[in-house]
Amino acid sequence: MNKHTQPAEMGAPRVTTGPLPASRKVHVQSQYDAAVSVPLREIALSEGASVPAIQVYDSSGPYTDADVTIDLESGLSRERQSWAIERGGVEAYEGRHVKPEDNGGATGQHLAREFPVRNQPLRGLDGQPVTQFEFARAGIITKEMIFVADRENLGRRAMLPDAQATVEAGESFGAEIPAHITPEFVRSEIAAGRAIIPLNINHPEAEPMIIGRNFLVKINANIGNSAVTSSVEEEVDKMVWAIRWGADNVMDLSTGRNIHNTREWIIRNSPAPIGTVPIYQALEKCEGDPVKLTWEIYRDTLIEQAEQGVDYFTIHAGVRLGYIHLTADRVTGIVSRGGSIMAKWCLAHHKESFLYEHFEDICDIMRKYDVSFSLGDGLRPGSLADANDRAQFAELETLGELTKIAWDKGCQVMIEGPGHVPMHKIKINIDKQLKECGEAPFYTLGPLVTDIAPGYDHITSGIGAAMIGWFGTAMLCYVTPKEHLGLPNRDDVKVGVITYRIAAHAADIAKGHPAAQIRDNAVSEARFDFRWQDQFNLGLDPETAKDFHDETLPKDAHKVAHFCSMCGPKFCSMKITQDVRDYAATLNDREQGMADMSAKFKEMGENVYVDADAAKAEKDSNEAL
Amino acid sequence: MNKHTQPAEMGAPRVTTGPLPASRKVHVQSQYDAAVSVPLREIALSEGASVPAIQVYDSSGPYTDADVTIDLESGLSRERQSWAIERGGVEAYEGRHVKPEDNGGATGQHLAREFPVRNQPLRGLDGQPVTQFEFARAGIITKEMIFVADRENLGRRAMLPDAQATVEAGESFGAEIPAHITPEFVRSEIAAGRAIIPLNINHPEAEPMIIGRNFLVKINANIGNSAVTSSVEEEVDKMVWAIRWGADNVMDLSTGRNIHNTREWIIRNSPAPIGTVPIYQALEKCEGDPVKLTWEIYRDTLIEQAEQGVDYFTIHAGVRLGYIHLTADRVTGIVSRGGSIMAKWCLAHHKESFLYEHFEDICDIMRKYDVSFSLGDGLRPGSLADANDRAQFAELETLGELTKIAWDKGCQVMIEGPGHVPMHKIKINIDKQLKECGEAPFYTLGPLVTDIAPGYDHITSGIGAAMIGWFGTAMLCYVTPKEHLGLPNRDDVKVGVITYRIAAHAADIAKGHPAAQIRDNAVSEARFDFRWQDQFNLGLDPETAKDFHDETLPKDAHKVAHFCSMCGPKFCSMKITQDVRDYAATLNDREQGMADMSAKFKEMGENVYVDADAAKAEKDSNEAL
Repeated sequence: MNKHTQPAEMGAPRVTTGPLPASRKVHVQSQYDAAVSVPLREIALSEGASVPAIQVYDSSGPYTDADVTIDLESGLSRERQSWAIERGGVEAYEGRHVKPEDNGGATGQHLAREFPVRNQPLRGLDGQPVTQFEFARAGIITKEMIFVADRENLGRRAMLPDAQATVEAGESFGAEIPAHITPEFVRSEIAAGRAIIPLNINHPEAEPMIIGRNFLVKINANIGNSAVTSSVEEEVDKMVWAIRWGADNVMDLSTGRNIHNTREWIIRNSPAPIGTVPIYQALEKCEGDPVKLTWEIYRDTLIEQAEQGVDYFTIHAGVRLGYIHLTADRVTGIVSRGGSIMAKWCLAHHKESFLYEHFEDICDIMRKYDVSFSLGDGLRPGSLADANDRAQFAELETLGELTKIAWDKGCQVMIEGPGHVPMHKIKINIDKQLKECGEAPFYTLGPLVTDIAPGYDHITSGIGAAMIGWFGTAMLCYVTPKEHLGLPNRDDVKVGVITYRIAAHAADIAKGHPAAQIRDNAVSEARFDFRWQDQFNLGLDPETAKDFHDETLPKDAHKVAHFCSMCGPKFCSMKITQDVRDYAATLNDREQGMADMSAKFKEMGENVYVDADAAKAEKDSNEAL
Repeated sequence: MNKHTQPAEMGAPRVTTGPLPASRKVHVQSQYDAAVSVPLREIALSEGASVPAIQVYDSSGPYTDADVTIDLESGLSRERQSWAIERGGVEAYEGRHVKPEDNGGATGQHLAREFPVRNQPLRGLDGQPVTQFEFARAGIITKEMIFVADRENLGRRAMLPDAQATVEAGESFGAEIPAHITPEFVRSEIAAGRAIIPLNINHPEAEPMIIGRNFLVKINANIGNSAVTSSVEEEVDKMVWAIRWGADNVMDLSTGRNIHNTREWIIRNSPAPIGTVPIYQALEKCEGDPVKLTWEIYRDTLIEQAEQGVDYFTIHAGVRLGYIHLTADRVTGIVSRGGSIMAKWCLAHHKESFLYEHFEDICDIMRKYDVSFSLGDGLRPGSLADANDRAQFAELETLGELTKIAWDKGCQVMIEGPGHVPMHKIKINIDKQLKECGEAPFYTLGPLVTDIAPGYDHITSGIGAAMIGWFGTAMLCYVTPKEHLGLPNRDDVKVGVITYRIAAHAADIAKGHPAAQIRDNAVSEARFDFRWQDQFNLGLDPETAKDFHDETLPKDAHKVAHFCSMCGPKFCSMKITQDVRDYAATLNDREQGMADMSAKFKEMGENVYVDADAAKAEKDSNEAL
């Protein structure tokens, strides 16, 4: 089912393509605009299921579409570029050309191959709406808003019969989950600043998606090479791999050389929004010395990345000179890379942060391309001991102030959050964020709820992520098992993504999203009916589920068997249920004698179970072969 | 460090022994009774740490004690048997002899080897206190109570200076965590029924431990062979392996043949309490047909297991005939094996459950050996769809009624809980349990907060476990990655245990246990100081942490390096902190010129970072070798 694309030449990326088991890509045309259709994954179920298939949210793009030929050298289709052009208010222009410092001065064999195609960038004109926020505020529903409305409804054109009851049965802590999403609802949430569609007009390869507390909880996967390890090929592969397993967004956190060329390969081939931390690249342009950073170098980097199509920038403009001393007594000081770069700069020059001082200039650049803000938490805690301290909250208050400025400038904004927070301090943290930042979407890393499990921080943080997602966080940044220890490889990326899909989905259910539990119920029904293949295929990771099952019961016959390796074939609790249902029926039909039923059950008890010894003997003899 | 014991002859178990890295077993003598000393694990830290070592709770028994020679053929030391004998009120007697049906009629090569040593069992005399509950109610502090008080304090003889503040900063939802545990507090909690020490007088190999909401949250690991897979050797190895990684309790859920002999090997070698579900064995005595079960067969099985030393029995006495029809419309019916056995029996005979009818007789048996009740949740939900339904809560109300009967009979009691519960229904579930069961300790399986991730149910359930632990659950039953798919192997057991240690520890911190965060802070300090080995050794799984680190930076030099593979050597956020601390110092010393500091930081910025290219080149050339 999976296959790897063949590399066109040395140095070209190879990625995993093909649908997941029993799945196919479907494109559902919008009822609001015939030119818009949303991609979904349809999982076929086997005979005996109550429905033939179920549709699930699908962030994996054309890579899982059997009808699309992937050519990484050309990039994905840019057909949605017409959406921005048709609306007007944008111009194509020559744009900035790549400079040697954009790739850290790499030359010769150290220079990663340039992406083969160059596109002219678009930018917004002054005085006309460009960003989704500006359109929303102007009362205009864009195609992107229609796309995300249909996408959030999983292609449903009408409200589910029990949607309102499901919403009311949930606990959303003040969020207002609608029973059905309309384009107008999307518009109103964006206009209120409660949601964003991170989508640079120069990234038409991306499928629009929305981040906000009244929508499905999203997850982000971080990739990126570092000064000491990995390559362009690995990072493009990781991007495709991350979205295959369910990442909604990908951040390219590359450092070291070749940042520009790596990013270009990633963006041109990414159907998911791409975020970056521009100061990482700016730092490389200063030979890694924060003291040498200038506004001019940073500004040039913003334009470079905006023209490439980066969908959101993490900007640590809340790390103010006056807050830095608040971290002096922390157990783990400043652990944000961006935060510490800015702290270093502020201290060395003894000046206010140039990001804070030039914040309006930054807004003006980002508005032109509709790059969303991800206001960085440069003073986030790096340990439980430092959670919710004055340094973190002082910065958060400033992020609230900057949010309002960015909105006034027409920009979309989300806010980054911690980090490391014990369970009893998580709600305090997000409540503070919602209050200070006017409900701008919260985008948190974990948080980790304990520091004692290096190697398992996908789990320590997945616990916190599920909780903070439930409390209202709109997007969860994944943490992999390698956190604190090394850079994630492909396996780590997959485990991180699946852990965070679990957290996000658990939050959706608890909040009362009307369709969230449909998939859970389908798994449960499959489990109870012993439709093993359906249970595997409906799960987040069908291959792992199947492999685990097959470790104990490998034969194909066991995948239709009405038993599992826990109880064995002789006795199975799930099989008792038919007895119970028959019995319950008698309670509704008082005329039938209880004694008859009793006799019937006795007889069933002796006949319905196959012989365990025979099954075990068969297994043993198979293993002996 | 780790080694495997050599098998004495074919069929004898091999287990993993030896201390964890940088660790040694210490025995701290009690200040309350010189005859009592508690085992702890001391983790040595490297130079530069603020303390030379930290002590952590240790459930692994003599297997990690370098001074003890393990001989599985003899079992562990039974020296603590004198504690029960000295108190009086017990008698030794010949006891029941093994019958063929105890091992499912296995003969010849199918019969697992008998444990080589037979001990005469003890039992309590009528009219005298035997159980910890009876002693507690009588105002008597036992050695076991002293042992657990010292153990819960991690050997500390005095209150930590900030203990009261830590407790007050936590959120315990009505629990009353003491700043320091005294033997009298242990006694009073047991007398109130809020805590139990599950310790059969015939299991003197076990180290006493306590389960209750005002103590550290405990975890249980399930092991056991099934009709289709695994062996005695594997199960003894899994028990030792589970406690090595932190399981506080182990349940032997064996089915099929050889149940008696498997259990004997496990108990005689287990320093942790062992729980069972006696109806599993009773069922095997009826050729797996629930309809043939009788009170007499069950009663004989209880005595058989009580004499062996099982510390607690799961008894599904709340599955009443009148509740069974409540499960008819469920998505997943009855999923508890014990619950479905009893449902089947009740339906077939159309009679009230013999467990319910004979509950006082069961109490009389269990009191004599101080076997604790674990009142089983036979109607627990098997899917989110069935959570907190009438069937579950009807049974829970009956468990409350039975709790009071068991207390009146002098028995210790805990209550089992779900299962599958979405996040927003977890608190409702435990609040109902605390109310119905008079705060008897809750012992839950997970709960899983979503059903869509077969293969990852340690994570889906770890999220729910951390939350329900925080809300007041006293012991968490682990779930492994194989849940719903197959029987766990050694690797699965380890992952399950570590995931649940994370959940339990996160709950301890959130509840405000006074010493819980000491280990987190030690990890964080090690992380910040780049004491890599200390970070590994302080973690729950030192070997995995080290392996993950070494995947990217394998050289020994990199384990003392002041950088990691995330940022590389050229820039490191953690290294900025010294600048910050110097700066903060200037704020306290206004006479020093800011300009001087600025110049100093500029200079540092240029010199403190080593060259990234050199490090990468060195890594590449190492890899090329």
